[in-house]
Amino acid sequence: MTERANRRELADLETARTTIAELGLGSEATAVPLDDAQGRTLAAAVSADIDVPGFDRAAMDGYAVRANDTVGAGEASPLELAVAGELHAGQPPEAAVGEGDAVEIATGAVMPEGADAVVVVERTSRDGDRVAVRDTVTPGENVLPAGADVAVGDFALSAGTRLTPRTIGLLSALGESSVPVRGRPEVAVVSTGDELVPADEPLDHDAGQIHDVNTPAIMAAVAAAGGEAVRFDSVGDDREALADALSRAAETADLVLTSGSTSAGSTDVLATLVEEREDTELLLHGVDIQPGKPTVVGRIAGTPYVGLPGYPVSALSVFRVLVAPAIRAATGVPAPAMETDAELATRVRHEGGRYRLVPVGLVADGDGRTLAYPVDKGSGATTSLAYADGVVTVAATTNYVPSGERVTVELFDDEARPPALLCVGDRDPVVSSALSGVERVRYLARGTQAGEQWLADGIPDVAVVAGDPEDGTALAAWDREWGLALGPNADLSGLDALIDGDATVVNAAPGTGLRAAFDDALAALGEERGRANLRDAVDGYGVTAHGLDGPARRVKSGDADAAPALRPSAASLGLSFLPLGTQRLTVVALPDRREKDGVESLVAALDEVEKLPGYERVE
Amino acid sequence: MTERANRRELADLETARTTIAELGLGSEATAVPLDDAQGRTLAAAVSADIDVPGFDRAAMDGYAVRANDTVGAGEASPLELAVAGELHAGQPPEAAVGEGDAVEIATGAVMPEGADAVVVVERTSRDGDRVAVRDTVTPGENVLPAGADVAVGDFALSAGTRLTPRTIGLLSALGESSVPVRGRPEVAVVSTGDELVPADEPLDHDAGQIHDVNTPAIMAAVAAAGGEAVRFDSVGDDREALADALSRAAETADLVLTSGSTSAGSTDVLATLVEEREDTELLLHGVDIQPGKPTVVGRIAGTPYVGLPGYPVSALSVFRVLVAPAIRAATGVPAPAMETDAELATRVRHEGGRYRLVPVGLVADGDGRTLAYPVDKGSGATTSLAYADGVVTVAATTNYVPSGERVTVELFDDEARPPALLCVGDRDPVVSSALSGVERVRYLARGTQAGEQWLADGIPDVAVVAGDPEDGTALAAWDREWGLALGPNADLSGLDALIDGDATVVNAAPGTGLRAAFDDALAALGEERGRANLRDAVDGYGVTAHGLDGPARRVKSGDADAAPALRPSAASLGLSFLPLGTQRLTVVALPDRREKDGVESLVAALDEVEKLPGYERVE
Repeated sequence: MTERANRRELADLETARTTIAELGLGSEATAVPLDDAQGRTLAAAVSADIDVPGFDRAAMDGYAVRANDTVGAGEASPLELAVAGELHAGQPPEAAVGEGDAVEIATGAVMPEGADAVVVVERTSRDGDRVAVRDTVTPGENVLPAGADVAVGDFALSAGTRLTPRTIGLLSALGESSVPVRGRPEVAVVSTGDELVPADEPLDHDAGQIHDVNTPAIMAAVAAAGGEAVRFDSVGDDREALADALSRAAETADLVLTSGSTSAGSTDVLATLVEEREDTELLLHGVDIQPGKPTVVGRIAGTPYVGLPGYPVSALSVFRVLVAPAIRAATGVPAPAMETDAELATRVRHEGGRYRLVPVGLVADGDGRTLAYPVDKGSGATTSLAYADGVVTVAATTNYVPSGERVTVELFDDEARPPALLCVGDRDPVVSSALSGVERVRYLARGTQAGEQWLADGIPDVAVVAGDPEDGTALAAWDREWGLALGPNADLSGLDALIDGDATVVNAAPGTGLRAAFDDALAALGEERGRANLRDAVDGYGVTAHGLDGPARRVKSGDADAAPALRPSAASLGLSFLPLGTQRLTVVALPDRREKDGVESLVAALDEVEKLPGYERVE
Repeated sequence: MTERANRRELADLETARTTIAELGLGSEATAVPLDDAQGRTLAAAVSADIDVPGFDRAAMDGYAVRANDTVGAGEASPLELAVAGELHAGQPPEAAVGEGDAVEIATGAVMPEGADAVVVVERTSRDGDRVAVRDTVTPGENVLPAGADVAVGDFALSAGTRLTPRTIGLLSALGESSVPVRGRPEVAVVSTGDELVPADEPLDHDAGQIHDVNTPAIMAAVAAAGGEAVRFDSVGDDREALADALSRAAETADLVLTSGSTSAGSTDVLATLVEEREDTELLLHGVDIQPGKPTVVGRIAGTPYVGLPGYPVSALSVFRVLVAPAIRAATGVPAPAMETDAELATRVRHEGGRYRLVPVGLVADGDGRTLAYPVDKGSGATTSLAYADGVVTVAATTNYVPSGERVTVELFDDEARPPALLCVGDRDPVVSSALSGVERVRYLARGTQAGEQWLADGIPDVAVVAGDPEDGTALAAWDREWGLALGPNADLSGLDALIDGDATVVNAAPGTGLRAAFDDALAALGEERGRANLRDAVDGYGVTAHGLDGPARRVKSGDADAAPALRPSAASLGLSFLPLGTQRLTVVALPDRREKDGVESLVAALDEVEKLPGYERVE
């Protein structure tokens, strides 16, 4: 430990960037076969060792001649020459061209001795071993002289050139079958946390296990920046295990990246570890950005080290803003063409105090303008990133950005672009099924209330709402049957029995169509009974589960006796179903989006979609 | 042969594009491990099979409590709770939280039964087994409920989604360790021509051999569009061999791409072959674009087939305009963000008649504006493409585009951007050596005259010119010694001996500094002798060789007795050297480019560069 970082003071973005840039991520230059050189960056300038072409070359099909012999030839005044032979590309000339001679020659063939020009075939007429030429050519005409493309010793390509098909073609022309390119730094990716399980292993929910998101996501991000990601098994929060993993990673890699576990003070565990070990150096702890504050930068046994925060959104944000530029600088991968202008579709409030990166999604409006809307389910949600296209940066001193403001969106990558269709609203199996047939859709299942609100804000192309919305252009509507999914012990004949009995319920989340249907039914029954609020009489009314089948699945697992559900949900879970009514479900488009290709595709898909039990299409 | 194409009528661009698009290049969807999914395109929508998170999860470090127990707590009115345990992420809760209890909990841990909220650690004070909470929390506060990120059955990602780190993260969260992606069409790449030799084999210049440019360049272009390029050995112009190669390629590939050899009527050979065989179909022969007219589209044994022209510039242009869009449509790779606006630096003349793609290079001027200049050494030159950044399309009806015109440049790829330094002018070993230390340079060695002309047109950052140019800002200058490189049989004591004797010469190309020095010396001697033109007295004056050492190398190979050369050239070739004078060589910048980073780098490199024999730096 050579330097003690001040933990209380957060580094600003620029300091953090510089600190990481100065870690020195470069790896040694290496030679690769030309066939593997695409996307690599030349480590050294390449000069030509050979002439291209290596010989005086016919540039057109025609006849190789002495230019002098064609003086006076023209369309009206052809001159006859004797055909002395024929030359193809790749064939050594057999004889010289004498005075009055012509040799039939193909593009790319070696100019025979004596000849200094080519008359193109269109200006000749062949008759046996004679050819009439109808053009006066000058010496050198239609000939590409040796070295005219590139000559020996020419500076051909500079260091730092990214290799593309075109430059690969030039290198091949020069006979460079192997080229010196910048190395790809090996980046060890180590996720930490006792709760992490790889994607291909089952989870124990009761033990709080989750799939490891950071390892594959960061590996992919490392590869996109030109690095060579090396997967390490995730390690628990045990100090010894962590220390051991860091040492192993530092031994082989050019850069060690951890993403902190979510357990209490875990980043502190890493920072402390780095700070306290003899062979390490802590350069920076804490960066003044949001998300991403708990970032650690240092060295382990001389190897550059960056400790990213544990939440995927934070980890990938810090990677993108701080680490990717350093890897790209080492590998020569250019930064993606990163920005687009957009109009902010809703206001952004900001507590202020820290430089903030607000994830936004993009959508094209009817006029082809781009709107940006904040996508923020919190740093803990994977969808905060997966359903966003870029970030809007908000300065530490700004508290509020109004709706309608023109903003610059820094795109996550070159792939980032508005989806063909943005759909917000209630969950519905028929809609999901129709959307399966549409390409590049984003479906934000935030419930009916959100669907209506977003529609009023003019954001989504399409909203899925329970009821008959007043706004927008209806694309399709169904009446869908809903009721209660019942557990084996619940023998309910109707809503009355639920109110009067002791059956327990798991409810649908607020704002969803199913919740509204249940509330409406309870209200109607309350009116019948002259009692304003029957909700209190439902045991478990306030206990909710997410997802269309979420409540019913809680019944299935024995947590409750009954739950609001659609008929197909109960059927697919093998639960009995007490029908309580039908609910109108409408798919509605913003009028100015009606002509978008994505909306057209959805309309076609909705017309084709298989009808489910309990569904009636409304025309 | 099902349809006979009319060979005389060229298809327009749109017809050609449609014909190729309708060949149907798609290959079957396939499942890949998530770690290999970066850059692939989802072939089917993915729905969630699990809740994310799978349990009610603490969203902050702090204490899990019953919200009800915190009512009234605040900074000034702490409430004490009993600490009933501690919970880390990845650990099953041991006990329920009773009334008046709190459990210390880490972000990501499972909420224990009974608790419905988390008080963040910053609003608590621990004292042994008691904790004072200073915040009133509501049920659900700082808790991420099961399924709140994604719930079972949710439509997670649509078909057609390009997989990036962020979406890969989401798939991992969902436990999708293998994902259905669109296949990469296998594209057989077959170059034709007897003259072709792979880059790693030596050339026989006398037999007109050249390195195969198209195979590696087209393979790289196929890969960039998302296809799987399969290398075939190049085949000669023999009809049987061609037919056999096409059959073999069509058997395994999803698309066969040939690039025609440059021999006479070779494309006709291919078209005729395709037209005449029983198992083939010729859909299109000839496209109305320049370069690229001789393009063939059809099917071989049912497999889509495109025959590209043989010249690399033409082959890659047709690939880019017609074939790449079809491969990208099949693989879901988005088109690169293709356009930039630029100001045309010199006029473009166009014979008219065909839709023309003019390759242009880009350079940033002093104000950061982008200039475009035509880079056209002809379709036969590999540098026409390698030194260009994109194309300007000129309509068939346009004959002339004036200098200064605002044009749209279609970029070749996402990597295409102006070089850090554009240098035009004379060849010089000291300049080449200095440029080797500068990144992302483009050095167009077109000679002194071109350097001065381009400088006057305001195009390059820097020009290398023999003499003392009046325009621009001189960055560095040398006096370089020049003279005649002499063959073993040439015993020349001076220029007189060359004029009066029978020694033969190979000259430097017109427009070069070396040529000018030779001309000046001949003129001076002519003046002495009272004879206006001594050039005619030099045997071989009109015979030229490209490249700085080109003429001297012709002496080395015995083609001539003497050649103008710089001292280091003669030395490196082991030729004796007859000094005839010194020539000023100046590196000069356009004044408004002087501050560009690339120019600064060059200045630093010029100051560091090793002095060569015969060179004196001029201050």
